[in-house]
Amino acid sequence: MGKKMGLQSVVMDNPPSLITGSTIVGPMEGLGPLREYYDSVLPDDLFGEESWEKAEAKMLRENVKSALKKANLTMEQIDIILAGDLLNQLISTNFAVRELDIPFLGLYGACSTMSESLLIAAMLMDGGFANYTVAAVSSHHNTAERQYRFPTEQGVQRPPSSQWTVTGSGASVLGKTGSGPRITCGTIGRVVDLGVKDPNDMGSAMAPAAADTLMAHFRDTGRQPAYYDVILTGDLGLLGHRLVQEMTRDFYDLTENYGDCGCLVYSEGQDVHAGASGCGCAAVVFNGYLLSMLSAGKYRRVLLAATGALHSPTSYQQKESIPCICHAVAIERG
Amino acid sequence: MGKKMGLQSVVMDNPPSLITGSTIVGPMEGLGPLREYYDSVLPDDLFGEESWEKAEAKMLRENVKSALKKANLTMEQIDIILAGDLLNQLISTNFAVRELDIPFLGLYGACSTMSESLLIAAMLMDGGFANYTVAAVSSHHNTAERQYRFPTEQGVQRPPSSQWTVTGSGASVLGKTGSGPRITCGTIGRVVDLGVKDPNDMGSAMAPAAADTLMAHFRDTGRQPAYYDVILTGDLGLLGHRLVQEMTRDFYDLTENYGDCGCLVYSEGQDVHAGASGCGCAAVVFNGYLLSMLSAGKYRRVLLAATGALHSPTSYQQKESIPCICHAVAIERG
Repeated sequence: MGKKMGLQSVVMDNPPSLITGSTIVGPMEGLGPLREYYDSVLPDDLFGEESWEKAEAKMLRENVKSALKKANLTMEQIDIILAGDLLNQLISTNFAVRELDIPFLGLYGACSTMSESLLIAAMLMDGGFANYTVAAVSSHHNTAERQYRFPTEQGVQRPPSSQWTVTGSGASVLGKTGSGPRITCGTIGRVVDLGVKDPNDMGSAMAPAAADTLMAHFRDTGRQPAYYDVILTGDLGLLGHRLVQEMTRDFYDLTENYGDCGCLVYSEGQDVHAGASGCGCAAVVFNGYLLSMLSAGKYRRVLLAATGALHSPTSYQQKESIPCICHAVAIERG
Repeated sequence: MGKKMGLQSVVMDNPPSLITGSTIVGPMEGLGPLREYYDSVLPDDLFGEESWEKAEAKMLRENVKSALKKANLTMEQIDIILAGDLLNQLISTNFAVRELDIPFLGLYGACSTMSESLLIAAMLMDGGFANYTVAAVSSHHNTAERQYRFPTEQGVQRPPSSQWTVTGSGASVLGKTGSGPRITCGTIGRVVDLGVKDPNDMGSAMAPAAADTLMAHFRDTGRQPAYYDVILTGDLGLLGHRLVQEMTRDFYDLTENYGDCGCLVYSEGQDVHAGASGCGCAAVVFNGYLLSMLSAGKYRRVLLAATGALHSPTSYQQKESIPCICHAVAIERG
């Protein structure tokens, strides 16, 4: 039986194991510094489909299938899939899962969905409700741009604070038993909104939520940042990453082992301005790079704190600021 | 420790208790046959706000506060709020929760979200991760119409198969202990899509998912429909309700105690065509009417099977059919 710890954190009694992770990314991500860690790189953004939305759904579906294959499990063995994406009404996920025939729980945490899905999956498994689960998310640069900002064909100039939505999907297969790294505990975020209104500066909007959840995690668990080999926020990019360090420095030292997935996906020469973003950002870094490092024994303790901006174009047009959230999940190997 | 039962169902070991439910509805719902069961009826659709979207967020927020007051609990005592709505990026929920300062898990199950949130909340509590949780959803006729179909000001004629999105919010407060009715088990739905493409006929689109989950529930638990005093699907309306009876009649008898929330919210004279729909539909029927009946001892065993249509205007425009889902949750008193 798991337990609550402090105000926002939860601790597993029998920590579920990460059997495997799988990733598919778009062509631009495939040219980035983490290219060797991805399972599959698409040659183009359409993946043989007639719209980017259908391509995103296919990417998520094929990635879940590939994760199951890597885990040597059949669809029938998966008790629950927990998944989400950025599109209105989660259509990428819904259309992906339609062809998977697995009991499905839809989640929306914007770009925090990878850690939200891992955390809920781990709690449900620790609670006895599932032997195998899948946690999966996706995002696509072109579907996100035309939904949140401008159609990409319009060629609107992007300000330096803007980030580039990752075209990619990450899927994790979790087992009640197994020898993989384990989800030991996590911290459920609160919605934090310090008044940022600019959808081209998501890093500044999300940094306070990331700082809030990281500090809650350290406070609730009694752990110091140095407990982890690496702490990665989701997709704050260059600006947000620096802001988190500033906002936490009176309490915790995040100068040594704290990074951000948004700063890892693209190289400087790829000219994406402030870095990467999107559900897929934390998802491909986690299921690609981080799980590889954990398997290789280069990391033993990792904290993934994916961050989400919970606004919509409608709320922006109605002059609202951007509410944000961050969920943290600790992955450790024995 | 809970357990899985059959292919899609879960059983609680220490079933959490429903401490209370609270409801706020719009003026039209307040004229309907269930009016005496609602806690609060708004005099207009704007609730003192400048947009319907802001009104919906306020409705959800105020309803959660009112539920906590009825439960005699403070915000600090709630470990997790699980919530969702129909709007893009869950803005009603995100903006409501922003002012609540409770660890938050965002869910998207379209109109199935009330049973999805109750079921996940119950599993997390049974697993030991929370002592008190809130499960809450909202919908608003005017925000849903302009997002999914046409601006209401345009006065487009609605076909006879169309349903009317409920303006309302339902919030349930769950406790690990307590003397209220208990969430004993539930069934997690799969995505089912038999090819219906008409967003003005959601009942026909969702009926196959409802039938699939109900039959899975009976098969997994070994219960017959007669085990329950009442079985209510979410918001299938007149057409969908009849279709579910037809689709299941070779296996189970749903002629006696099976109804649909979409057929209960409005009277015939209110001219809403095929009935009510929206996240708020199952939510206000459950937290208003059903919990009252359970408290009064008129019902002892209830199965709530809220149903969701998982399409978006974009998927409709791209000529996709409507994937649907239904989650079932059993509420019983000793």
